[in-house]
Amino acid sequence: MNSLARALAPRSVAVMGASDNPHKVGGRPVAYMKQYGFQGAIYPVNPVRAEVQGLTAYASLADLPEVPDLVVVAVGGEEGVRMVEQAAAAGVAVAVVMASGYAETGEDGRRQQARMLAAAQAAGMRLVGPNCQGLANFATGAIANFATIFHEQPSSDGALAIVGQSGAATQSIYALAYARGIHARYVLATGNEADVTVAELFGAVVPDPGIRAVVLYLESITRTDQLAEAAALARARGLPVIAIKGGRSASGQLAASSHTGALATEDRVVDAFFARHGIVRVVDPYEAISLVPLLMQAVRPAGDSLVAISNSGASCVMMADAADEHGVPLMAFSDAARTRLDEALPQFVASTNPIDLTGALLTDRKLFAEVLDTLATEARPDLLLLAFPVAGAGYDVPGYARDLAAFASRCATAVAVAAPQASVREPFAGYGLATYDRELEALQALKRFADFCAGQREVAPPARAPVEVPLPAPGGGRFMSEAQSLAVLAQAGLPTVEHIVCRTQDEAIAAFCKLGPRVVVKACSEEVTHKSEHGLVAVGLSDEAAVVQAFERQCATLATLGAASEGILVARMVGGGRELALGARTDPVFGPVVMVGDGGIYLEALGDFRLLLPPFDVAAVEAALAQLRIAPLLRGVRGEPPADIGAFAQMAVRLGDAMLAWQDDVASIDINPVKVLARGEGAVAIDALIERTVTSG
Amino acid sequence: MNSLARALAPRSVAVMGASDNPHKVGGRPVAYMKQYGFQGAIYPVNPVRAEVQGLTAYASLADLPEVPDLVVVAVGGEEGVRMVEQAAAAGVAVAVVMASGYAETGEDGRRQQARMLAAAQAAGMRLVGPNCQGLANFATGAIANFATIFHEQPSSDGALAIVGQSGAATQSIYALAYARGIHARYVLATGNEADVTVAELFGAVVPDPGIRAVVLYLESITRTDQLAEAAALARARGLPVIAIKGGRSASGQLAASSHTGALATEDRVVDAFFARHGIVRVVDPYEAISLVPLLMQAVRPAGDSLVAISNSGASCVMMADAADEHGVPLMAFSDAARTRLDEALPQFVASTNPIDLTGALLTDRKLFAEVLDTLATEARPDLLLLAFPVAGAGYDVPGYARDLAAFASRCATAVAVAAPQASVREPFAGYGLATYDRELEALQALKRFADFCAGQREVAPPARAPVEVPLPAPGGGRFMSEAQSLAVLAQAGLPTVEHIVCRTQDEAIAAFCKLGPRVVVKACSEEVTHKSEHGLVAVGLSDEAAVVQAFERQCATLATLGAASEGILVARMVGGGRELALGARTDPVFGPVVMVGDGGIYLEALGDFRLLLPPFDVAAVEAALAQLRIAPLLRGVRGEPPADIGAFAQMAVRLGDAMLAWQDDVASIDINPVKVLARGEGAVAIDALIERTVTSG
Repeated sequence: MNSLARALAPRSVAVMGASDNPHKVGGRPVAYMKQYGFQGAIYPVNPVRAEVQGLTAYASLADLPEVPDLVVVAVGGEEGVRMVEQAAAAGVAVAVVMASGYAETGEDGRRQQARMLAAAQAAGMRLVGPNCQGLANFATGAIANFATIFHEQPSSDGALAIVGQSGAATQSIYALAYARGIHARYVLATGNEADVTVAELFGAVVPDPGIRAVVLYLESITRTDQLAEAAALARARGLPVIAIKGGRSASGQLAASSHTGALATEDRVVDAFFARHGIVRVVDPYEAISLVPLLMQAVRPAGDSLVAISNSGASCVMMADAADEHGVPLMAFSDAARTRLDEALPQFVASTNPIDLTGALLTDRKLFAEVLDTLATEARPDLLLLAFPVAGAGYDVPGYARDLAAFASRCATAVAVAAPQASVREPFAGYGLATYDRELEALQALKRFADFCAGQREVAPPARAPVEVPLPAPGGGRFMSEAQSLAVLAQAGLPTVEHIVCRTQDEAIAAFCKLGPRVVVKACSEEVTHKSEHGLVAVGLSDEAAVVQAFERQCATLATLGAASEGILVARMVGGGRELALGARTDPVFGPVVMVGDGGIYLEALGDFRLLLPPFDVAAVEAALAQLRIAPLLRGVRGEPPADIGAFAQMAVRLGDAMLAWQDDVASIDINPVKVLARGEGAVAIDALIERTVTSG
Repeated sequence: MNSLARALAPRSVAVMGASDNPHKVGGRPVAYMKQYGFQGAIYPVNPVRAEVQGLTAYASLADLPEVPDLVVVAVGGEEGVRMVEQAAAAGVAVAVVMASGYAETGEDGRRQQARMLAAAQAAGMRLVGPNCQGLANFATGAIANFATIFHEQPSSDGALAIVGQSGAATQSIYALAYARGIHARYVLATGNEADVTVAELFGAVVPDPGIRAVVLYLESITRTDQLAEAAALARARGLPVIAIKGGRSASGQLAASSHTGALATEDRVVDAFFARHGIVRVVDPYEAISLVPLLMQAVRPAGDSLVAISNSGASCVMMADAADEHGVPLMAFSDAARTRLDEALPQFVASTNPIDLTGALLTDRKLFAEVLDTLATEARPDLLLLAFPVAGAGYDVPGYARDLAAFASRCATAVAVAAPQASVREPFAGYGLATYDRELEALQALKRFADFCAGQREVAPPARAPVEVPLPAPGGGRFMSEAQSLAVLAQAGLPTVEHIVCRTQDEAIAAFCKLGPRVVVKACSEEVTHKSEHGLVAVGLSDEAAVVQAFERQCATLATLGAASEGILVARMVGGGRELALGARTDPVFGPVVMVGDGGIYLEALGDFRLLLPPFDVAAVEAALAQLRIAPLLRGVRGEPPADIGAFAQMAVRLGDAMLAWQDDVASIDINPVKVLARGEGAVAIDALIERTVTSG
């Protein structure tokens, strides 16, 4: 058993600064371990008391009858540092430092925290915190955690693991889960993360077969390797993982930076990272807990086709709206299904989806069971949403709950129930069904659940041979010239526009004759990256005179700018098609990142792009493109042919593979536009700019 | 007192088909009126019983000691029709027909319903229903409503009015309000609306000074006049109105059509209508009830500047993210405010917004009061959100609630509290503060509340003199030619591109000389509306030869098509600027509607447009443009000047005024593109097409 597994299941716990008051930080772990039936030894350490909460107290760590597995430090300042040093020296496996006043408060605190860490590392002791709420395990009753809520909302052992930096966030998650009758086994909060991270503790809970869902709260992501490793373990055993990652917006990043000193990141990289590792991202604890009841079910639907049922036509309308707006397809019924539904439903009701049971439910005792049986035999939807806004005397709600539970156990259908009255939800929840007070929340949860299942089915992209494309030796500057950039991309397998670099007028004329009838003329220099601003791009030239004129003018401009010329590039003008943008950069935390988006000069202003982490496959690129606002245009509108997104996706895949090889040397690549022609006609890079990594010093 | 006011406050109620069983449709009104203390006379009518629920029963309406104000009909089929006829003949003011089986079931039922209506109208009796849950007034106990929920969740009289077509929807709203401790006075459901509509009942509750918020559920909008009139009354007395209007999406419209036969409408017209009449649109009962606690407060903040406070840094991050994502500005503190906050907060915490109280709240008893006092004297935000994810022993939650309530009564600030634990929310709710279990929901509610207050402050656009622009007499077809269309718009005061209609080559050359250096040449014919498809548009012509060639080719093409030529239009080519679209049409329900959006051929595919109902002013157009996805581009990016949206807005205003005059004659107007030049340089219609209303027969 490694130290972190030991941290979650210690045989003995010492509490340094143990208090007789069960409501103080140093009193709560003692009180909780007694309350939650911890079977190991509890050693309160308090130099001025013989007894703490009825247990024998010890004056110091050295006085204990054994070296405890885990030490809780509830004492701050220099004294806290000394206690960590003592514990390390004594051979303790794990210290949980609850006390605050360290790195989060300034330079002095940072130095003290560094000393704690040094002592722990020297002795091979793991350090949780400081400034952390600590570790709670309700399976063993080892509650090295001072969360106030365990007093007020006493937990039973459950199947949920909650792991976060912030103690307040983990308490929020716990409280919201509690309100829905979901119990947690682990509630783990890491605070300043001098040593142990959320990702490591996440990894430590994954092997526990009693855990059926994990909720993470992250404010910063630093160790992507740990997170990816734990996520891979979770995925291998089919364990759902939900993550809240704050700091999505500018204000949120500012607040996160003042809270935990988190660094700002382009938030869509986080989306890409979670997507790649099968982690479901949510915005807050509420959304996390809304999903958990579905994720904890054994069923894993194969798609997202929905059947919605209600005894209210108004509910049917609202569910249909919500389904459309969330992109959940309402299943079309087969003729056989319609025939049976027509027989079951009142004559004046259409057998459409959503299914309106109407008030007939009151008089026809078999209606609901018959509808469910029809769905089970003739439809088998992936998702089923039952809304019950009206109930009361005359409605056999316990019977409906029994029927629905039987349906759920018979079909591979994910089932959710929405009802505004708690008394209506209860019988369904009693059968373990996911219940909501709002149709919209139920539908969103079903959709996210279907997306999670789809993500789990995706196979990892096949390992591909590394791309062996040598980069040209650095010239003078950070940027490669257009010609160099295009050449490098062509070597990496990306189609690039046909072009010739010309040194003389005659070469330019010959290039025009070869590449015309219309060409683009662009000056080539490592030293000039914003060519348009200097008038160094001429497009749509269709006669020799114009080409010669542009050639001469651009040579003169380069001379005026004092920029070294690598020649003038004459390129074939590619007509038609749609302009997309393709880019890449090396993120300091997440490594190579590829961007696909709407092309043109408003890429940043409109922000219509998505990010992907390589390696990825063509399907991943196509899925990202389908999420763009311009997606309808790519499919072809107004009689236009669909765009060759397959060809574009192939370029993105190659760029991703290349970036894996180049990540140390290339800071960024912009290919904007890529001309994407009609399906079957390919895609081609028109403009390209590669920025090298500049190593300082 | 008119009949609808009488319907809500009857002095006597007869129940036709009264049942001794308080759980039957005919038994519930009797039971509820007894339970809720109705002081008027209750007359159960049942030919086979001498007594119903302890009250004397009568064999028929004719046997009652008086003509009741209101008659409930709980008997269906032909018998129900006869009872309505009897009530009408007897001089009853209002009949509430609960029985179903009428127009909603088919042709026979439609005929029966028509007979009911005819009898009622002939006698001046108002008819609610049939197929309706009926009318409940908890102020008087007049409960002519069979909702089951009044048994299970007994109401006290409250300040909320719930009015809807669907009984299930009104019950959902009631149940969700109940769960938040909000009580309703009126619960009114109109069912088939043979006569009385939701809009009329809405109008009937507005004058009640005890009502502080109205929630409407609408599945179809037919009588915009009634709705507008009631909304105007509500606005005049500052009464907030929230509306749920289902059928936003294609599936939702299909479901609505099968539920109540509602007609499909372009949903954004509904948004425009609600916006114009100060009605807050929400997606479902849950969102409605989430808003009500704020709307019921007396405070009406003047803006939307937010201060967020929490005792958890994680909460601060999530609130900052949510504020950014919902466009709520986090207030920047003055130096004076920062100085005081710095003194109050722990030294290591920045006095930024959101304000992180940290665990210092536990040890510093005065911290929260001091922060609130600083905000009250130095900041006075419009909105304040307090998140309390962590509480328990040591936290003086009742004290915080008292302090916050005092702050709210001192400042014109809308206050909301978010806490996952019900026990933490309760003390705040006890002071009448709006509480939520989720920061995000509280923030969304505050934002919608601020938007509502802004809408209430907007003055109605000044009445303008009607536009007297004669339309040219109809030619052969539905469409006016380009030249005619531009001429009509110019007369209405819209700047149009300079152009000349040419009949001969010489005229075309002269036009080029006058309008060049670059021109567009377009064929003009009422009979050809898709000019581009027929090669009848040539752009960017810059020499005489090209103009002549285009002229000849277009004349020939028109001849080939057999289309009557009105000449060839030569127009100045307007360079630069941004292309927007401006349009209008006459909606069969909502009347004239103006569209503003991103221009070009992908208007419909991308859907980046907004609708407005005329008359409106320039500010309304600018607000609509600010909601477009391309809004950042209009403000000027990448060194481009901002666009002259004022000039464009003026065009939209004029088009709206013109459409008010033309609505009987013009079906639609497309002006796409409008070239919007740099600020100060104006905007000009480039292409235009006016479609006349075709009167059938």
